[in-house]
Amino acid sequence: MKLLIPGPVTTRPEVRAAMAQDLAPWDNDFRPMYASVRERVRAHAGGAADSHVCLVLQGCGHFATEAAVRTFIPAGGRILIPMLGAYADRMARLAREAGRVVVELPVNQLVPLDPALVAAALAADPTLSHVGVVYSETGSGVIHDAAAIGAVVHAAGRRMILDAVSAFGALPFDVSARPELDALVFTSNKCFEGMPGLGFAVGRIDRLLECQGNAGSWSFDFADVYAQTARSGPGSFRFTPPAQVLAAFEVALDIYDAEGGQPARLARYMANRNALYDGVVALSLQPCLARAVQGPIVMNVHAPDDPAWNLQAFVDALKARGYLISNFYNTPQPSFRVGLIGAITPDDMRGFVAAIDQVLPEIGVRHRGPARQAA
Amino acid sequence: MKLLIPGPVTTRPEVRAAMAQDLAPWDNDFRPMYASVRERVRAHAGGAADSHVCLVLQGCGHFATEAAVRTFIPAGGRILIPMLGAYADRMARLAREAGRVVVELPVNQLVPLDPALVAAALAADPTLSHVGVVYSETGSGVIHDAAAIGAVVHAAGRRMILDAVSAFGALPFDVSARPELDALVFTSNKCFEGMPGLGFAVGRIDRLLECQGNAGSWSFDFADVYAQTARSGPGSFRFTPPAQVLAAFEVALDIYDAEGGQPARLARYMANRNALYDGVVALSLQPCLARAVQGPIVMNVHAPDDPAWNLQAFVDALKARGYLISNFYNTPQPSFRVGLIGAITPDDMRGFVAAIDQVLPEIGVRHRGPARQAA
Repeated sequence: MKLLIPGPVTTRPEVRAAMAQDLAPWDNDFRPMYASVRERVRAHAGGAADSHVCLVLQGCGHFATEAAVRTFIPAGGRILIPMLGAYADRMARLAREAGRVVVELPVNQLVPLDPALVAAALAADPTLSHVGVVYSETGSGVIHDAAAIGAVVHAAGRRMILDAVSAFGALPFDVSARPELDALVFTSNKCFEGMPGLGFAVGRIDRLLECQGNAGSWSFDFADVYAQTARSGPGSFRFTPPAQVLAAFEVALDIYDAEGGQPARLARYMANRNALYDGVVALSLQPCLARAVQGPIVMNVHAPDDPAWNLQAFVDALKARGYLISNFYNTPQPSFRVGLIGAITPDDMRGFVAAIDQVLPEIGVRHRGPARQAA
Repeated sequence: MKLLIPGPVTTRPEVRAAMAQDLAPWDNDFRPMYASVRERVRAHAGGAADSHVCLVLQGCGHFATEAAVRTFIPAGGRILIPMLGAYADRMARLAREAGRVVVELPVNQLVPLDPALVAAALAADPTLSHVGVVYSETGSGVIHDAAAIGAVVHAAGRRMILDAVSAFGALPFDVSARPELDALVFTSNKCFEGMPGLGFAVGRIDRLLECQGNAGSWSFDFADVYAQTARSGPGSFRFTPPAQVLAAFEVALDIYDAEGGQPARLARYMANRNALYDGVVALSLQPCLARAVQGPIVMNVHAPDDPAWNLQAFVDALKARGYLISNFYNTPQPSFRVGLIGAITPDDMRGFVAAIDQVLPEIGVRHRGPARQAA
C-alpha cells in the first residue's frame, strides 16, 4: 500500500525494519546514536554547534510547536500569526490555550504570503514580540517564503517561530542565515520519511538560555531539554522516548543522505507534483491551486461535479488498487487530497493517476470537472 | 538481549514485528483497531462505558501525568503529594511548573504509605482538592496500597490522581470501586509489555465534562481528548499518533489476555521477584528492601562493599552475557537496579543471577556484602 497522505508517509522497508527491536534508551549503545542524530539534523538545518542545537520531544508536531511557543514567548506575550490555513489555525489555538496573546493576520490562503503584510502588521503593533509562520501549509498546499518573511521580521527587530513540519527536509532552510529565528519545528514522519512519534526543533542556544522559566510546563520546556543536554550530554533523553522511532529515523537519515539530501528530495517531490498535476489535468480533473503556487508537499484536487461523487467510495476503490489518500475534506469546496511526499516516485504518481481513471467510472462518476472554476 | 530495566521492557517478537508496517491513522482500517484498544483498556481497568473512558496521548508517562494534573486540577489548585520517591518528585515538579500548588507530605520511602498520614494531612488542610499518588514507586521498588489510600481520600471528600505507570496491568485496580479517582495514568511500555510512545489514562467521564477549560494547554487537555471522542468517534486520534506503537500495543493486549490477564501477569512478575530475591541472597548480595515490602516491578540491590565495584563495568560485563540493567544509581547508597517486568520469566532471572556470580569475580569484586545493613 502506498500512503499518499501528507504524513505519516510511505517509508522504505529498511526504515520500518528498524522499529522491530527492543532498545534501552539510556544504554551506552543508544546514547551515541541519539547524539549523532541530533548533530546530523542540526547540520542539515545549517546551524553551527556553538550557536544552534537540535531538540527532540516525544509526541508529534503539535507538541513541538506548543513547546516552541511556550519556551520562547513568555506567558502573556504577543505573537502575530498570518492565518495561512489549517495549521496556522492550530498554532493560534496552541498559543492561545497556553496563555499567549495571538494577533491574527487575515490573508488570502491560496497564494504565498506577501512579506509586506507582515512588515505592516509589525509596524502597526510594537507589542508583538514574535511572528508564527507555517512554511508549507498542509491545508492549502501553498509554500510560503519563510526566508523572505523572516527578513521582514528581522528588520522589525522581532523573532520568528517557524512551523516547518511538512517542509523541512525537502524545502531549503538555513538557520544560520536567519538570526530572527528562535526555532524551526518539524517531525520524524514527513519529508525525512521516518516513522511518527517524535517532534524536533532546531533552536538558538542563546535564546534557550534566556528563556529558562518561560514554559509553564516541564514537559514542553525546550529550555529544560537543552539544560539536560548541557548537564548529561547530547545522548541523554529526557523521559522515556519512543526509542524505536529514533532508530528508524537514523536509518531514514542515512537514506536521505545517500539520495543527495535536501536538493535531491525536493527534486523528487517536485517530480511527484508535476506527474500528478499533469496526470489529473489530463483526466479532466482540476487541481485547487494554480500550477505556479502548487507546492511539492500536498495537492488538493477539486471533486468532480457529478451527483455520483462520494469521497469514501473513491478512497475505498483507490485503496483496493494499493493507493491510500485522505478520507476527509480539507477545503471549503469538496476536493480530494493527495500527499506528494514519502518514499514514492513519479512512477507511483502515474500509477495512481491511472487508478483514478479506472475508479471514477467504477463509482459512477461521468463528469469530471469541478463545480466551479478555481480562482 | 533481555532488558532487565523497569521500562521500556523486553517485548515478545510478535509485538515488535507489528511496528514494521506503514499505517495511516485516519484510515477506516485503523480507526476500529484504535477504538477496540481503548475499549479493552477501559474494561481491564474495571470502568463501564457510561462512566469511564480510556484516553490516549502521544508521548510518555510524564506527558500523561502532566495532562491529568492540568485537566482535573484548575490553575492555582492544590494537590497533596506523598513524597514516595523519584516519581512522586517528578509529579510534584510537573504540577508545580504547570502552576498548581503542591503540598508535599514527607514519608518513609522504604515502606508502604500509611493511609492515615494522608487522612491527617487532608484533615489539616481543607484547601487541598486532590491527592497525587504513585502506585509502584520505581525509585524504591515499594508498592503502595492505592485502594486503601483512595478510601481515605474519598472519606475526606477529595479526589485522586494515580500514577500507575509501572503498576497497571500487573497490580490490581478497579476504577469502578474508587469514585474519588479522576484518572489512572499508565503507558504502553511497562506491564502491558508494549513499545514506548503512548501515554494512557482511564478517567471519569463526568469529571472530564466538568473540567473543560482547566488545562491551559491544548496538547495536554484530556477533556479535549474526550471531546474529540464524543465528536468524531472513539477511533479518532487527536493529532498524528505513533500508529505503529498502537498496533504493537494491540498485539501486546492479545498476549496479555491469552496469558490470563492481570492475575497471571502479577503471578509471573512475583515469580520473577522471588527468583531474583532468592538468587541474589544466595550470592551473598543484599536487596535494598526487606522481602515483605519488595514489590514485583523493580528491585534495587546494594552494591558490594568492595573497592573494585564499578557499576558501568558490572553493567557492561552483564550485557556481554545478554542481560541489560540500568547504568545509573537510583538510591542514596550505591546499588544496582533490576526490572522484574516485561517478557521475562523466572528462568531468565536464574540465568541472570548465574551471570552475576560469574561477572563479580571478573570485575575483581571479592566482598559481596553491602557497606551497611539495610533497614
